[in-house]
Amino acid sequence: MFFQILKPYLYAQNQQQSEMKLDHVGIAVDNLPESNLLFERLLGAPPYKEETVTGENVKVSFFQTGDTKLELLQALTEDSPIAKFLSKHKPGIHHLAFKVEDVALAAVEMEKSGFEVLTNPPKIGADNKLVVFLHPKTTNGVLIELCQELKQQ
Amino acid sequence: MFFQILKPYLYAQNQQQSEMKLDHVGIAVDNLPESNLLFERLLGAPPYKEETVTGENVKVSFFQTGDTKLELLQALTEDSPIAKFLSKHKPGIHHLAFKVEDVALAAVEMEKSGFEVLTNPPKIGADNKLVVFLHPKTTNGVLIELCQELKQQ
Repeated sequence: MFFQILKPYLYAQNQQQSEMKLDHVGIAVDNLPESNLLFERLLGAPPYKEETVTGENVKVSFFQTGDTKLELLQALTEDSPIAKFLSKHKPGIHHLAFKVEDVALAAVEMEKSGFEVLTNPPKIGADNKLVVFLHPKTTNGVLIELCQELKQQ
Repeated sequence: MFFQILKPYLYAQNQQQSEMKLDHVGIAVDNLPESNLLFERLLGAPPYKEETVTGENVKVSFFQTGDTKLELLQALTEDSPIAKFLSKHKPGIHHLAFKVEDVALAAVEMEKSGFEVLTNPPKIGADNKLVVFLHPKTTNGVLIELCQELKQQ
């Protein structure tokens, strides 16, 4: 009886919630200080942190927007993935990042499901994360990052 | 004394949290049924709803990804904003939508802050929302939607 009452609710929950939670949206910018000011004006608060990701040759800043974040990315060198993106596109949205428990396992599962995994094995990304990317040609034109939070040192 | 203790905490909170919460990410697609299956494979759950937005001539579906949503948008006519987007770009991320309490007021404030507001006065969008858009030329190349939840009928 109790399960009969609960069942539609459980089913609805299962239907609604995906296994992956959006962690942040990455936005490629030409000039980080200028874009920080622009997004502060838009969002009503300054970035809560800035950092340099040496492995990707980018400088990034983060804005908290509810449970998710915006990550602004400026290239530091011409061979940075962000410099390559900006040689083909205007500044704008670069990627969507989803949080996973185990990024290496998630990468294997994504490959099995037909997605092309880039940067495998996972690399150290910004914000104390281990990351892989899925090629946009297999994801409706959207560059997808999967990120796993690393334990604090 | 009490305020002295509280002050750094309040300041830190103020530094971190923007006034705007990301509601959803809009993704332009060519074929909604095919993209629904692709994102179900990626996210591990099907869309929780589909609807037609007559004012925008689009058919949309929504996936829950934590506190935010992905909105897939397929054009229904050639004069739909999504059809115009897809005549210039490949399928991919189309806009970021932020939730506001009062979209008409937010539009006025955004204009005062130097952002170009499109679709003003606000229009009825998907998901029972009243929406305006900010022109990407004033927002670092990112098409921004501001959306206000309408009261249920």
